[in-house]
Amino acid sequence: MSLETARTEYLNVGDIRFAFRRLGPTVGTPLILLQHFTGTMDSWDPEVVNSLAETRPVIAFNNLGIGTSTGRTPDTVEQMAADAESFVRGLGLSKIDLLGFSLGGMLAQVLAVQHPDLIGKVIIAGAAPRGGEEHLLEVVDDAFSRGAPDVRLPLFFTASEASQRAGRAFVARATARSEGRDPDSGDAVSESQAKAIIGWCARKDEDDATLRAIGQPALIVHGSDDTMFPSINAYNMFKATKDAQLIIYPDSGHGALFQYPARFVAHCRTFLDE
Amino acid sequence: MSLETARTEYLNVGDIRFAFRRLGPTVGTPLILLQHFTGTMDSWDPEVVNSLAETRPVIAFNNLGIGTSTGRTPDTVEQMAADAESFVRGLGLSKIDLLGFSLGGMLAQVLAVQHPDLIGKVIIAGAAPRGGEEHLLEVVDDAFSRGAPDVRLPLFFTASEASQRAGRAFVARATARSEGRDPDSGDAVSESQAKAIIGWCARKDEDDATLRAIGQPALIVHGSDDTMFPSINAYNMFKATKDAQLIIYPDSGHGALFQYPARFVAHCRTFLDE
Repeated sequence: MSLETARTEYLNVGDIRFAFRRLGPTVGTPLILLQHFTGTMDSWDPEVVNSLAETRPVIAFNNLGIGTSTGRTPDTVEQMAADAESFVRGLGLSKIDLLGFSLGGMLAQVLAVQHPDLIGKVIIAGAAPRGGEEHLLEVVDDAFSRGAPDVRLPLFFTASEASQRAGRAFVARATARSEGRDPDSGDAVSESQAKAIIGWCARKDEDDATLRAIGQPALIVHGSDDTMFPSINAYNMFKATKDAQLIIYPDSGHGALFQYPARFVAHCRTFLDE
Repeated sequence: MSLETARTEYLNVGDIRFAFRRLGPTVGTPLILLQHFTGTMDSWDPEVVNSLAETRPVIAFNNLGIGTSTGRTPDTVEQMAADAESFVRGLGLSKIDLLGFSLGGMLAQVLAVQHPDLIGKVIIAGAAPRGGEEHLLEVVDDAFSRGAPDVRLPLFFTASEASQRAGRAFVARATARSEGRDPDSGDAVSESQAKAIIGWCARKDEDDATLRAIGQPALIVHGSDDTMFPSINAYNMFKATKDAQLIIYPDSGHGALFQYPARFVAHCRTFLDE
């Protein structure tokens, strides 16, 4: 079973129907994946997800209004985090770990603080703290203006030959699934999510209160040259979080975790297995 | 065979007799250990060294004037690096990886730049770049004034209970060997090495030319609260080095690699095995 072949399942919570996919063993603490701006389950790198699922249960899902999940995408990180929590509780889970990428890494910070009993360990990749530095709209606009075969090539990878090569390999992996593939997100999603991200970064967080309230072990992973959320964000998040490890990869952009999938999975395992 | 039980061997190069210990398998690229300020082979954490030696040849040695190596400890990083190279060449090695801690991490930077054919991968732990920020003398003086059972408790670990506990475990491991133990370094060593470290940091390196000249993959590991070489050094070294990964550990000081020995070894393996 792999991300590309797993059947999409559905869970009803109240009037919302969540689409999700379960991978890996049935025992062990599940790792819940929290996706990036406009991303669906099929935007994850199958190599990362499938490798993680070799040694632990992994659950990808679409939050409200994404893919074939119903509901309307909210325009705050806090509401998205609350929706993610209702999905997790709806599955009957009482202990999970989180891997949040970009926007998902912001949800992970909120969830870790609000639900210390539910959330064990937290991996925050390519994110920014509350009040952090973001260049979302400029970077997205610039990436779309390039006419690249896939907008993630300029958006997630550096201009170097090695990074672009890794980017093309990632795109090939992430577009392999055709059957039962999640529909792409439209403007309703991107507008609400952009508002959420910009609002998260615009609101200063006095003394990094959110990060300082994270009691769980955290792994912060970032690219050296992330144009959307500059890598100094990761260093600052690390400094403010009690029990965080910081890992930054070379010659990499926002999609650093997909540029070095084997390395990233090894680092996740070292962190989660400890 | 372990660091604590391995017989000390000797190698003559010119008029110098180098003391060294070989651990691990005989095939594979040897990892050469470059030691910290005043440290001998017996100052390494046996857990780190023995675990590394499970999967690769590891060679610890004493540079000039340290332990039972002859010669006089020089007072520049560059000369120490040249001496280390003569030891490695004397062993007949043509390809090695380096793990340099603190002062050893400075030697590793020089060796990587000067000998791209000899040096494969470089692990730089708890170091500073040329022109970096150091507080060696204040920190060492302060640590000795505390009257701790081992000066490395205040010097290498934070004041937190968890870090001090890890520190005591490290000291127990690092003092286990009694037979054939290296004699401690005296004033001749500490004075020359202090001069070398202070000189290295005092000399500004325009545009980080040394780091920019490192072409090898590098892993930079640091503690969150290193008082001797503040952790921003590690971030700055990472930014200036072409192919560097940065890893920083939480609630840890100069001896971060000995505070989290299993984690550090896992990260070294992920890096070296790639």
